[in-house]
Amino acid sequence: MKKKVIIIGAGFAGLNAAKQLSKYKEIDVTIIDKKNHHLFQPLLYQVATAGLNESDIAYPIRSIFRKQKNVTVYKDTVENIDFKEKVVITKSKRLYYDYLIIAAGAEENYFGNTEWKKFAPTLKTLKDAQILRNKILNAFEMAEKATSDQEMKKYLTFIVIGGGPTGVELAGAIGEMTRITLAKDFRNIDPRLSRILLIEAGKRILPSFDENLTSKAVKDLESLGVQVWTNSLVTEITDDSIKIGNEQIEAATVIWAAGIKANSLSSIIPSEKDKMGRVFTANDLSLKNFPEVFVCGDLAHFIQNGEPLPGIAPVAMQQGKHVAKQIINDLKNKKREEFVYFDKGQLATIGKSKAIAEIRNLKLSGFLAWITWIFVHILYLTGFKNRIFVTLQWAWSYITFKKGARLIIDDEK
Amino acid sequence: MKKKVIIIGAGFAGLNAAKQLSKYKEIDVTIIDKKNHHLFQPLLYQVATAGLNESDIAYPIRSIFRKQKNVTVYKDTVENIDFKEKVVITKSKRLYYDYLIIAAGAEENYFGNTEWKKFAPTLKTLKDAQILRNKILNAFEMAEKATSDQEMKKYLTFIVIGGGPTGVELAGAIGEMTRITLAKDFRNIDPRLSRILLIEAGKRILPSFDENLTSKAVKDLESLGVQVWTNSLVTEITDDSIKIGNEQIEAATVIWAAGIKANSLSSIIPSEKDKMGRVFTANDLSLKNFPEVFVCGDLAHFIQNGEPLPGIAPVAMQQGKHVAKQIINDLKNKKREEFVYFDKGQLATIGKSKAIAEIRNLKLSGFLAWITWIFVHILYLTGFKNRIFVTLQWAWSYITFKKGARLIIDDEK
Repeated sequence: MKKKVIIIGAGFAGLNAAKQLSKYKEIDVTIIDKKNHHLFQPLLYQVATAGLNESDIAYPIRSIFRKQKNVTVYKDTVENIDFKEKVVITKSKRLYYDYLIIAAGAEENYFGNTEWKKFAPTLKTLKDAQILRNKILNAFEMAEKATSDQEMKKYLTFIVIGGGPTGVELAGAIGEMTRITLAKDFRNIDPRLSRILLIEAGKRILPSFDENLTSKAVKDLESLGVQVWTNSLVTEITDDSIKIGNEQIEAATVIWAAGIKANSLSSIIPSEKDKMGRVFTANDLSLKNFPEVFVCGDLAHFIQNGEPLPGIAPVAMQQGKHVAKQIINDLKNKKREEFVYFDKGQLATIGKSKAIAEIRNLKLSGFLAWITWIFVHILYLTGFKNRIFVTLQWAWSYITFKKGARLIIDDEK
Repeated sequence: MKKKVIIIGAGFAGLNAAKQLSKYKEIDVTIIDKKNHHLFQPLLYQVATAGLNESDIAYPIRSIFRKQKNVTVYKDTVENIDFKEKVVITKSKRLYYDYLIIAAGAEENYFGNTEWKKFAPTLKTLKDAQILRNKILNAFEMAEKATSDQEMKKYLTFIVIGGGPTGVELAGAIGEMTRITLAKDFRNIDPRLSRILLIEAGKRILPSFDENLTSKAVKDLESLGVQVWTNSLVTEITDDSIKIGNEQIEAATVIWAAGIKANSLSSIIPSEKDKMGRVFTANDLSLKNFPEVFVCGDLAHFIQNGEPLPGIAPVAMQQGKHVAKQIINDLKNKKREEFVYFDKGQLATIGKSKAIAEIRNLKLSGFLAWITWIFVHILYLTGFKNRIFVTLQWAWSYITFKKGARLIIDDEK
């Protein structure tokens, strides 16, 4: 009898597990995802800021596995899991498993202020990126036809909340847009006078990086017109302003990049969780009382060297591969192994020719870090075509300073 | 004093008028459009069927004119026009004009059955294309997880209503998708067994073409699995079926390509109109009692050789240029000229390597017509980058049989 493995979620963790398992014909793999595509999230901010197309960074899951006949893909939503009967219940099906890999990822966290969501959208999905792109581009259109200076100023103020990599990259890309891409497109406004604020509650941005690199990043952001406000806790968001303590700033565009929490599926997993809802696992990434169930990627809380691993793509990829290997180990009657994360380093980019990189003891900034960033991101993009087209789009933008996808696609008829 | 020309609509007519007028520094041009982009509508069906990206066929209007400092662009909606005071009233502004060019185009026509719109979406805007793409791709996903044969059949039935060029090209593209692109991507269904129906109320499809070419097109459609039903008037559409007389067919995907009518702005134009709401103009395309106001493109009803000109891109382009020339003639105290449409011919494509073309007395079909089709469409695409990227995408699809943009972007989290 073939062993049935169900994978929930085709992000970096789920996809890498599926790729490994699909090599074994004695295994039947079923992937369940709410979306029909794997998303290369590290580049999502470029879709939101009109640098790349949606299809450049996303790929249909079933196309990735079109030649692996032992892989079945369902675009479906998991509603429950019967861990005792080993059944996953989706909106349309009941699916039995021998092994289950839960890699459902994370979602945005407004820390209880869910009403902020409609004023300050976040960036997790392609739909989110389209919403943000519409919002950012529309702000310039509204400013161009504004009838007062106050109104114009409001539309030309962009606030990004959260100084992690996503917030930094978004703010940098908006800065680049205002200072370079859009500079000459308008007649009544000068986009170069836009105010862009990057708001961070902690004492510095990019806290996972070396302090010198953070300083370099701040300088790069400032050169693109982005002001960095640290130690600034946002206490209120309305449809056209935010409050930080007693200060109030008017802004038509506010973006939330301040936090994530575990996917809501976390609540049905029978295990201890941290306050973000991430699941504590055994050291092979399985659940303590259910060795046939694994949790990996952003949904897992895994401690190494006394600290939980960060929710980043390299951790998810390595965990996905590890989990697949443990299932193969079981089938071959080999002993399971402990998961050990191999840290290859971290990268963040701030506009054209600017980035910071920390690779073990090597600390890079400027052009060299940027080239490294480009190389790594193209290398990990799924699909030959995406790689070529992203490279071409970037080359195009680099040479012409233009951005290709500056389209507002809304319901106006 | 500089002369103020306002252009409503940046489709083929408005864009071509603006391009001509922008060459004259003594003219101030203001373009008003509800969208921020010019759309190359003849290729919209390829976005709806995942062959091209949105940004491949659309270009920001203000980027087209970034170097023409005498052109101002507003993304805005015209609410009224005071023809006596020569003022255009938008949602946010009152704009005075010396000359007005109304090129607001056409919209879908459900012939009174507006409730059909939610069951059978149409294809006029990028948003429409995204909605159709989601709907078509989702149908396959639903079929893959269907729990009964009847349900599966319903999801694998695609109905296109309307046998004009848009309907034919859409049906052909869906056929190609089922027979080639998606053939091996599923495990529980065979997309090659999809039923695709092209429904036409008249006695043949593509009635503007020579009858022999229509027969060739029908044969090409059939080779892609599309059945053509002529003399078939749709009398009812629900969320999962259509009725033609006494016959009822179940289908999850129904697309409306059966008719258009003038943009709703037509109602405020002081002139006679035809039953589609198109405006009768003087022979220089101006309004009889308002020589400073021109109507052109799909919004105009212009008779040549006893028949109204069709609502197609070449007519709109030539009319836009003509109108610009008449304004220049006025400024140079030259006499106005009559508009004469120069018919370069017509083209339609039905999947890879298949098309029909009628150029004066020359009638082409097959590969040669297809190459002509490709050449003409790339030639007329706005923007150097779009041309290159569309060519590359097509070359890619031609070689690999893959389609790049097969993404369902919906609200599922």
